[in-house]
Amino acid sequence: MCEAHAFILKDGKEEKILESVDYVKWEGDQICLVSIFGEQKFFKGRLKFYDNTQKKILFEPLQAGKN
Amino acid sequence: MCEAHAFILKDGKEEKILESVDYVKWEGDQICLVSIFGEQKFFKGRLKFYDNTQKKILFEPLQAGKN
Repeated sequence: MCEAHAFILKDGKEEKILESVDYVKWEGDQICLVSIFGEQKFFKGRLKFYDNTQKKILFEPLQAGKN
Repeated sequence: MCEAHAFILKDGKEEKILESVDYVKWEGDQICLVSIFGEQKFFKGRLKFYDNTQKKILFEPLQAGKN
């Protein structure tokens, strides 16, 4: 299984958003994640890192003035 | 092989930046890509999409006023 899992950094902790992410894309000003099961998650954020070895995609919340 | 390949959108065309990407991270205001072979690439850009089914990570150049 090659799919990575998506997390968001909240208060210094990594919170899982979605498992087995197939797509990451933009829908307007939101990030849209789609899992291999078709589940979708929308949020405002920014990529912090992607680590293929850990199968992890980490986002951070969008801050005012940053995109 | 699970690694995705990174591309950047230039003049409407997708230009390959790096194959077999293991890490995507930020180094200051630049994106840093690291391949499974340890090769690194730095550039100013923004994630456009990630498509696990195509093993593709597409970036777009950073525009003035956007991060």
